[in-house]
Order: sequence, then structure tokens, then C-alpha cells
Amino acid sequence: MNSFGLKFRVTTFGESHGKAIGCVVDGVPAGLEINQEYIQSELDRRKPGQSKLTTSRKESDRVEILSGVFEGKATGTPIAMVIYNQNQKSRDYNNIKDIFRPGHADFTYWHKYGIRDYRGGGRSSARETAARVAAGAIAKLMLKELNVEIKAGILEINSIKSKEIDYNFAKDSEINSLDKSAESAQKEAILNAKNAHDSVGGAVLVEAFNVPIGLGEPLYYKLDATLANNLMGINAAKAVEIGDGISSARSKGSSNNDSITKDGFVSNHSGGILGGISNGDIVSAKVWFKPTPSIFKEQQSLNIKGEEITYKLQGRHDPCVAIRAVVVCEAMMALTIADMALLNMSSKIEYLKKVYS
Amino acid sequence: MNSFGLKFRVTTFGESHGKAIGCVVDGVPAGLEINQEYIQSELDRRKPGQSKLTTSRKESDRVEILSGVFEGKATGTPIAMVIYNQNQKSRDYNNIKDIFRPGHADFTYWHKYGIRDYRGGGRSSARETAARVAAGAIAKLMLKELNVEIKAGILEINSIKSKEIDYNFAKDSEINSLDKSAESAQKEAILNAKNAHDSVGGAVLVEAFNVPIGLGEPLYYKLDATLANNLMGINAAKAVEIGDGISSARSKGSSNNDSITKDGFVSNHSGGILGGISNGDIVSAKVWFKPTPSIFKEQQSLNIKGEEITYKLQGRHDPCVAIRAVVVCEAMMALTIADMALLNMSSKIEYLKKVYS
Amino acid sequence: MNSFGLKFRVTTFGESHGKAIGCVVDGVPAGLEINQEYIQSELDRRKPGQSKLTTSRKESDRVEILSGVFEGKATGTPIAMVIYNQNQKSRDYNNIKDIFRPGHADFTYWHKYGIRDYRGGGRSSARETAARVAAGAIAKLMLKELNVEIKAGILEINSIKSKEIDYNFAKDSEINSLDKSAESAQKEAILNAKNAHDSVGGAVLVEAFNVPIGLGEPLYYKLDATLANNLMGINAAKAVEIGDGISSARSKGSSNNDSITKDGFVSNHSGGILGGISNGDIVSAKVWFKPTPSIFKEQQSLNIKGEEITYKLQGRHDPCVAIRAVVVCEAMMALTIADMALLNMSSKIEYLKKVYS
Amino acid sequence: MNSFGLKFRVTTFGESHGKAIGCVVDGVPAGLEINQEYIQSELDRRKPGQSKLTTSRKESDRVEILSGVFEGKATGTPIAMVIYNQNQKSRDYNNIKDIFRPGHADFTYWHKYGIRDYRGGGRSSARETAARVAAGAIAKLMLKELNVEIKAGILEINSIKSKEIDYNFAKDSEINSLDKSAESAQKEAILNAKNAHDSVGGAVLVEAFNVPIGLGEPLYYKLDATLANNLMGINAAKAVEIGDGISSARSKGSSNNDSITKDGFVSNHSGGILGGISNGDIVSAKVWFKPTPSIFKEQQSLNIKGEEITYKLQGRHDPCVAIRAVVVCEAMMALTIADMALLNMSSKIEYLKKVYS
Repeated sequence: MNSFGLKFRVTTFGESHGKAIGCVVDGVPAGLEINQEYIQSELDRRKPGQSKLTTSRKESDRVEILSGVFEGKATGTPIAMVIYNQNQKSRDYNNIKDIFRPGHADFTYWHKYGIRDYRGGGRSSARETAARVAAGAIAKLMLKELNVEIKAGILEINSIKSKEIDYNFAKDSEINSLDKSAESAQKEAILNAKNAHDSVGGAVLVEAFNVPIGLGEPLYYKLDATLANNLMGINAAKAVEIGDGISSARSKGSSNNDSITKDGFVSNHSGGILGGISNGDIVSAKVWFKPTPSIFKEQQSLNIKGEEITYKLQGRHDPCVAIRAVVVCEAMMALTIADMALLNMSSKIEYLKKVYS
Repeated sequence: MNSFGLKFRVTTFGESHGKAIGCVVDGVPAGLEINQEYIQSELDRRKPGQSKLTTSRKESDRVEILSGVFEGKATGTPIAMVIYNQNQKSRDYNNIKDIFRPGHADFTYWHKYGIRDYRGGGRSSARETAARVAAGAIAKLMLKELNVEIKAGILEINSIKSKEIDYNFAKDSEINSLDKSAESAQKEAILNAKNAHDSVGGAVLVEAFNVPIGLGEPLYYKLDATLANNLMGINAAKAVEIGDGISSARSKGSSNNDSITKDGFVSNHSGGILGGISNGDIVSAKVWFKPTPSIFKEQQSLNIKGEEITYKLQGRHDPCVAIRAVVVCEAMMALTIADMALLNMSSKIEYLKKVYS
Repeated sequence: MNSFGLKFRVTTFGESHGKAIGCVVDGVPAGLEINQEYIQSELDRRKPGQSKLTTSRKESDRVEILSGVFEGKATGTPIAMVIYNQNQKSRDYNNIKDIFRPGHADFTYWHKYGIRDYRGGGRSSARETAARVAAGAIAKLMLKELNVEIKAGILEINSIKSKEIDYNFAKDSEINSLDKSAESAQKEAILNAKNAHDSVGGAVLVEAFNVPIGLGEPLYYKLDATLANNLMGINAAKAVEIGDGISSARSKGSSNNDSITKDGFVSNHSGGILGGISNGDIVSAKVWFKPTPSIFKEQQSLNIKGEEITYKLQGRHDPCVAIRAVVVCEAMMALTIADMALLNMSSKIEYLKKVYS
Repeated sequence: MNSFGLKFRVTTFGESHGKAIGCVVDGVPAGLEINQEYIQSELDRRKPGQSKLTTSRKESDRVEILSGVFEGKATGTPIAMVIYNQNQKSRDYNNIKDIFRPGHADFTYWHKYGIRDYRGGGRSSARETAARVAAGAIAKLMLKELNVEIKAGILEINSIKSKEIDYNFAKDSEINSLDKSAESAQKEAILNAKNAHDSVGGAVLVEAFNVPIGLGEPLYYKLDATLANNLMGINAAKAVEIGDGISSARSKGSSNNDSITKDGFVSNHSGGILGGISNGDIVSAKVWFKPTPSIFKEQQSLNIKGEEITYKLQGRHDPCVAIRAVVVCEAMMALTIADMALLNMSSKIEYLKKVYS
């Protein structure tokens, strides 16, 4: 249950404060050039400690490729990547060892497994998303061969919306904001929450461009449903919309249907997906993230003996998890599309003849 | 790709106007009593032609069990169920045979497969959801053994919200509305759309009660992500929220965290899921449905030769797909929880000893 | 657990004396011509009652396609096929209802599930192999497009070996024997056993010709291991050899290695598979079948209350299951190769570019 | 395709001369004590360089656990283990870089992937089996909790049979021979082959004791078929027999059926499996290994340009791969049974109630 994807398949492992986290990427077509610097650069986009708007923890997150690449190319065998955790023993977790932090997985892991690695959230920590980003970087390399590009940015922070969608701006924005005119208000909301020992939620827009028509395997591996799965599975995600999502559900059929012309679709309310299959337009999804559950105000909870307690969390945490989730959303979109691209190769008998002729 | 679930596994087959639709349900624990009347009664809740607010098509939807049940009990072997289509040859589809209806899967199926069964939407028709409901009925029978109950109803139609959540009312409401005071306005919105040859969207609330703590398999078969997958995969679904979803993303950590007491959680913003695992509270999700793409106004589109056309659809269609989706949402919730309940059985070594002692 | 294959995927259902048996074949590339007469002709090769050397039971085994085929072609959606059981209520099974027949699955199904459909062996009956043959026929149709051909025949009956391998002869032989000069002795062995109320075992050779180089997905979906899985899963199979199998294990490396020349391999001890991947030579496997456990001599066993009994079985059974298993072995070989052919399509990045260019 | 098992699931990675090999073991029930010394001791049983009868290569094979274990116990999260390769750069492979060694996977990997890591066989090297042994050790730890024990030994070398089955003797035998009286002749056969620059094949008997009745998931995840899969997938395996296998196929039903008494089965021709499900008797399988393809005589082959060549291999290789395969067979048996034990937990509704009550 720690794997996903059917043909482009990723298995991740590792806890926040264990020896290492990592992943095994299986199904990468042989011959693909694997640029380790590119993988590292993607990880660098995710890593914490880069601004006062994210956590001040420092993690170097150096990725090491253990297998599956020979002379710079994928060999068709599984690509294992590992990121050793730094200083994982240095911190004292006695303060949370015996308590269930509200909004966290402490309570459920304890009850499900009867044991938990409490150090930094263990397996449930967002630290594991580094492995997704590493795997996602390989997916992006493969998608480049098909001219598919993935972009993402912050759509909303604490109800402050990005009205413009400017991916170029997002690239340089400290908070990955899509809208230059909203960025400072969004930043301020984050800082205010941080100063109040609180946290804020947000939303990410993630899109894929130049996706071939036909990706998605109905009826139970549809592109939209699988995206919903893969995006909702990101830590702290609480809602996923495809295309106009909720707005569509509040509109009429006559305005929501995307008319089709020779030049393509007139509008893209559908988010580039019809019947679970890509229609050639931009594949578009929104992911909504709850505010970081780690806050520094006094909270009510239980300890593992079942006693009621009040406690105050210490340490360093992102005041808004949506920020660093942007690159994770890109990774999950890339991995989803890559898998669908491989799966779709046997959709028609003529493709079969093409490959085996 | 026409299967879902890992241990409680469903495979469906069939097209809207083919000979039959049906499913194979695998992994049902042996000894479970299989009440065929109950399965039929669930199908009857879904079937069309029951009011002027849904399509006037008549489908008798009689389910037949072909295997896996002996003397009224599941034997542990696959339970195949079939629903023969009635009068499937009688209708003339020449009007849509060569065109791509906007908002439909016509365009994508054609491009993906190079061939399509255009009769009534073929495989992409919501008719297939009858198979899900039949499978879901078996999941509900199994969940009853664990005292788990699934409920659902209409939360919103054309922006008209159900403010009260009254499942008892929903049961008797012609449109499955959760709120007596909103029902008539919701109905009116549907009828207005219908009379204007248009359609409206809506939202469904679906919840599971008495779910054991510990269901959900992190990190890539989380309960919330799998629910998102299974609910987003329903025809016309465009967004899924877990718990307070988007509202959570617009709140602060201090208000969104659910405090824990000896008596359980003080609030349930999380929708009963933490870290992808059920926490013992009500598992709660919202599903947003776009307006029916089948409308009777003139629309712009292409035909399969790539020529631009205008056309007017004929026939009978639900003016609001959300209504009949209520029972489908219940089925998908039931199937998800049932699968998770089976998967969780090996979470602890002590369970293993319990079973094998 | 009633499905196999990853991309060309088959799910079967049904019991010997239930309403019907059948299968759902998923992943068939769209556009493939589906010839229902051909499927029926394959079923006819398997059906009993055709000679005094097999069981005298009559089963008409008419296959009906319920979905997935439109205007004679696969649409890319699941192909469901059903074979209704005839006269399934007519027979009296009170004699075996409460006993465990030695060599049968009665004992294990009872203990595993706590319930069993005892009529004719229920799910464990070889009757289910009709569903495999129907699915295998579709696989063969797909493989024909790649010029792959599957052949099989009887290699040995009761230690009487077929020394010649003559597939043309096997086609017309009443017992599918590969060797004209051994056939009559093999037949005699079967009849002798039958007359003595006993049964005999045998072996089948099954081969695939013109298999493209490169099929098989190492390391855990190798062609040889998957063949072993799929062939050993046939009722009564007790051993599988790839290529020269046991003879290889008794030879020296210097004689067992197949030298390679410009014209191909000099010998084929390997059975056309190296490292789990097809090498372009004939893919060759042997399957060994135990004697039919249903014999008509007095036997010692237990009843379901745990009491020791002696009993004498009645009814009609094949005196040698290997005979009718020949076409089942072909089906399983065809399904394995078909799946591998689809899976291999994403092995190289150049194939990806070929399909999406 | 580099994973196996459905609930107790193993993913392996790594090449013979890459940085590392390793595995991720998913689905281990939480709370199981994980004894790293035990895992290491199993690896030590497999490692080369321990006698003149196996390869003289030295590999230290130190296993490191990266995740999934906390305070000595499995936490329910994936257990990643890594074994770094020593001196992997030191050796010169120019002699085999451009040629296809007969009997090896060189030819097929090259054609399948268009690229290959030729160093020491890359991914196709038996070195990968160290990862299986590490995973198998964890399976054995779990099975100990159910009192299941796995044993294996050499049944035959170069046609010299072990007539006695003495697992205690095998434990101390340099060649894992099951028969004290055959051991010296078996050794001599190996040394003779080695001195003649040749190699010999052999067979392994692997058995599981105290297996609960009911393991195996018919019809497509049967215990015998899955064992065949997992054992045939071991490097150089060419045949698998369940129970008496080929002997059964040469016997009569009256002698092959295992009579059942109150004290269990009178004989065990079936190898402890009926209808694909364990019957409570010893689960027994034989695996046949071809002679090591790496021999030091002159051989005929092709190079990657397609030119015919003669060449003489250099280096150090096991003259008989079956010897070191003994512990690998144990691992694959343990992993198969462990997976089946977890899967079987939901076979009956009463087990479900037991766990959730």
C-alpha cells in the first residue's frame, strides 16, 4: 500500500526521523536520459528553510541514485533513490511521545498499529513528499519527450485569491503565488498567522499542458479519479476539484458544456477531461490544503493512556503547508500523466502493430 | 482497469445499450448472508422513471445472481450479477452516431479507441452505475455485520443549499434532499431547467457511521484519497471534499484542529479521517456534480469527420444527475469502507494470532 | 483473486452447477475483430462427451458475448462472456454432500470457507476452464495480428511417451496425442484405467511460435515464472517445466547452453526464454497432470463431522484429465503471451515516441 | 514488475555492480519483532566465498534497515533494507561488454531495452537474490509466530540423488545436501565439473511445516500456482514440481489420492495442497536448476553488432547454482506462505467479527 501507479510505478519508504527516506521507481522506459542534477533541483524547490514563510528547519535533501541508471540512461530496471536524513537523532521528542496532537495522524497510527514512530510524525510526516518529488522529476523527464509540461502555483491563501494565473511569476515568488497583485496580501496572512502561533490553509492550481488526447483508463482508472486520488493523498489535502469543479456544479448545462470547434474547445470548464479521458485541452485541477495542524497555541487532547491533557507544541513548522505543496502537486500530476501515457499505449490494435512491426 | 478495490474487489462490464451490464464481486467473506431482495431494493432506489424530476425512461433493472452464493450465503467465490438491458435495440441513435456531444465522452472515446458504441453513450453511460449499486448492496450487507451504516442525500441543487442534514427526510424525498425547508426550491430549480431545455448541477453529502478506528492504508491507499478516487469516478462528478474540505482550507489551524476528549472528538472538521486513517468519527465526504451535459438547446460541436456542426439533442435525460447519484455515492462509500475493513485485518500481529489461534 | 493478467486481464466466475460460468476480459486493444464463431469453436474443442476416452457428460457450452464488442470489433471496454449451465439442477449430489473426496478440494474449501457448493465440485470444478478457453480464444485472435501461434498436444499418458512432436496429428487425434505411433498405446492405457474404475495422469507440451523477442517483465513478472503460475493453476497440474526443464538440470553447462548464431539459436534447451524474457525462439513448456482424483473404487475418507468413512464415488468423469487440458494449456499460454505483449510496449522510450508521434 | 506478493509485498532493486541492491517490504503486521541479526544470519547463509564448491568471490553483504522498524518492532510502514555493493568498480568487464553470453540474459535484455548494464549481469545477476533472502527472513520471523517453519536442501546434483531427507544434515553440509550418504558423490560431481571448466545442474527440495489449513486464494492466486511462480522466478530455475509432481502424473488415481483419516492424510502425494489451498500437511515443492551458464570453455555466440564470435569467459562463478539457491528457495517459500496467511484472514465473516469485536 506504499506504491502507486500501474505501469509507471512508485514505491516510497521512510520516516521523518529514521535513517533515510526514498523511493523505487519502476517502469521507466529504457533509454530515457536521467539527469540527476535535474532531480536534485526539483528537490531543492521543495526543501524547507528557504524563507521565513516556511519552516526554518534545514534539510539538505541530497538525493542518491542506487540503481536503474547506467551511463546516464534508464535501463528499464527499477530506479531506487535514497535521501539520508541529517541529524535525525538530535531532537528531543519527549514532549509529543505520549500525546496525540490534534489534527495529526498520531491518534490513528497508534490505534491502527499499536505502535508509532513519534519522532517528527514518523511516516505520516510531509517529509516523505521529498520521495514523491524525486520520482516526479523522473516523470517530468519522460513527459518532456512528449512535450508535456506541468505547472503549478498558489491559488489562494487564507481566502486571499490569486486572480491572475501567471506561472512565470509563481516560479520566482517566495510563496509560489500565481498573482503578483495578491502575493503581498497572501504573504502577510501567513506571517500574521505565524506571529499569532497559528496557521493558515490554502489552495494550489496544478495543470498539465500538451497532454495527448486519450489518456485515462475508464472506468476505474479514469484520469480525473486517479488525479483526485493522487492529489488528495498529499499531506493536509482536503478537497480536489477537476476543471471548474464546484463552479461547474453551480452552473447550467448550457453554460458548462465546452463547445467544440476545429480549433479545439471554446472553453475548458471540464479541466481537459471528458469521461475520465484527456481531451487534448489543459488538464487542470485544484487542491485545497487545511491549515498546518502544528500550531503553538494551547490545545486539548488525550495522551496514549487515554487521559485528557492540555499541551503546547514546540518546534519549527510551516505556517502554511500549501506553499511547499506546490512542487508536490506538480510531482503527483506528472506521475499520474506519465502512468496514463504508458497505459494508453495498448488502447488500439494499430499501436500494437506499430510497436511490433 | 474496469476493477477497483483490493480485497473487496469489483469488476464491472456492460454498455448502456448492449445486451447486459453487470459485475463480479470478489473477496466477499464466506458465510455472509446475501439477500437478493435487498440488492434489488437498492437498485430500485437508483432506477429512472420514478418521478418527473428524473428521466422518464423506464428500466426494470432486474438483477440476477449467477454465482458465488449457495443456500443464501456467500461461498467465498466470485459473485457475478447481471442486469439484462430491456428493449436496447428499439431506439434510433442515428442522430448522435456521427457527432461528438459537448460535455460527453463521445469525443475522447472516439480518439482513444478509434471506435465507439454510440448507443446511449455506450460504456460511458451512467447506466453502468447500476452495477456499482448492486455491488455496493453486498458491501452494505457486510458492513451491517460491523454495525457500519452509510447515508447520503442532496446537499445542494443549483446553489440552493440544504442547511439541515436530515437523512430521514432524504429517504422519502423525491429528490433525496437533506433539508425539508430547501426541498421545494431545489425541485423548482430542476423543473425550471427542464422546462428551459437545460440542466442543473448539485452536490451530495455521503457519510459512514460507526466506522472502526484504523481503516485506511497509508500512504497510497489512504481512506480519504481512495474515497476521492471512487467518488470522483462517478459519472459527472467534478469535485470531492473530505470533511469540511474547502472551508477547512479557508480557516486557521486553531479553529480547524479537532480537539480530542475522552468522549471523542469535539468537532469533525476532518471528516473522520486523520493521516488517511479513520479516527472513529463519522466519515464524511461531499461530491459535486456538473449539470447533465445532455441538454435540448442548440449546441456547437464537431462530427467524426472533423466538420463543425450545430445540432439539437433529442431523447429523455435527467435534468439533474446529482439526484440519482445519491445512491451511487452510498454504494461507492460502502465499497470503499468494506475494502478498507478487510485490508486492515492484517495491520497488527495480534490480529494474525487471533485469527490463527 | 479470481483475476489474472496485468494488461490483458481476465476475471472468471461461476460454479460447476450454478446458473452460469463466465469471464470478463479487460484490456483487449480496440479495433480487434472478435469472431464469436471462433470462440465457440475453441470451446467445442474442450467440451466433454465427444469420445469414450473423456467423460460422457453432455454440455453444450454455448458462449454469449454480453459487452465490449460493437459491430464485430472490440471497443476497448470489458468483454463479458457467459456460458449458462444446462440441467444444473437435475443431478443428485447427496452422495458427496457431506464427504471429502480424496484428492479433491472438498476438504480445503470446507475448512477455508466454512461452506461449500458441493454440487460437482462447485468453483473447484474443471468446468471453470471453459471460461479460460473463451478468454484464451480472444488472446489468440490478438496474437494472430502479431503472427504468434500457439500449439499443444499430449506428450505422455501413463508413462507412454509421444516421441514425435506432430501438431498436425494432435489436431485430429481423439486424445490430442502428438505422436501417431504412441497414440493407440496411450488410448489403451486410458481405457484400461477406465475399465478398472481408475484413472491415469499425463503431460501436455504447449508451445508458442513466432513470439517477438523481449516479452517478459523481470524480475517478478518473468515470462517463465508467469507461465509456471498460469499453467500450474490449471486443475490437476502438479509440475511445470520450461524448455528442457529437468533434463537441463541433469546436464552440464557446456551442453545445456544454447549457442547463438546469425541464424538464431543452435538449440533450444532454454525453451525460448532467457532471464525471464523471450529470446525469439519457440516458447516451450510442459505441464504434468495428476490422474483424475474421481475414481470409482472404494476409498477412505472423512465426512464433514470428522468421522471416518469408506465410500464409492458414482457419476461420469474423465479417466484422464490431461486430454481435455490440452486446449486449456493453449489458452493459458495465449493469455500469458498476450499480456506480456501489451506490457512490453513501454519497455523503450522509442516505442513511446512511435505511438505518440 | 519488480514487486511480488499482494499483502506481504516485496519490491527489490539493484544491479550486480551498481551502488547497492535492496528491497522494500510492505505489509508486515505492526508489532512484529524485527531481529536484524537474524536477517544478517540468513544473508550469511547465502553469501559466496564460503567454500571451494561455490564461487570464490567475497561479498560481505551487510544489510542495513532504513525504515519501518522502531525500537526493534515493525511499525506497519514499509521496511526498506539496503546492501551496498563492495568494490563494484574494481573489475574489468570489457571482455563481456559487447557480447551475448550463451545461456545468459545478455541477449534478451539488450533486445528488450536497447541498453544493458553488462557489469556482472546487471539486474539479471543472482546477486539480487540477496534482497529476497533479506525479505524472506522477515517473512520467517512472522511465520514463527504461527509456528510455521521452512526447510530446504539439495535433492540432486548432476543426477546424483539424495535418497534420505535429513534437514539436520543439510544444515551443516557444505553443499546443503539432504543425504549424508550422497553428499560426497555430489561434491565430487561439482568439483569435477569445476576442474573441467564446466558446470552442473541440480534440484532443491523446499518444504513448509505446520502450515494452517486454508492458505491459498483460488482460482488465480492458488498456493501451488503462486509457489510455481515464485520458485520458477529464481535465477536458473527451469522446473517446479508440487508434491510428487511428475511421479504423480505417472501414477494411477487409486495410488495417488491421499486418503484422509482422523489423524490426517495417510500419504502426501499432493504436497499439502488441494485445489490450490493448503490442507494442513507439509507443503512441499521441488525446484530444478540448470547448470550455471557461466562456464570457462570456448563458446559460440554473437556480439552486439550481430557478428559471430567465439570467446572464453573469465572470472569466478559457482560451478553449481543450486547450492546457494537453497536459502533463496526457503525465502521464496516463506514469502509465499506469509502473503497467503495475511490474505486468508478475510476468508470468513467470522474472522472479520473476531478482529473487529
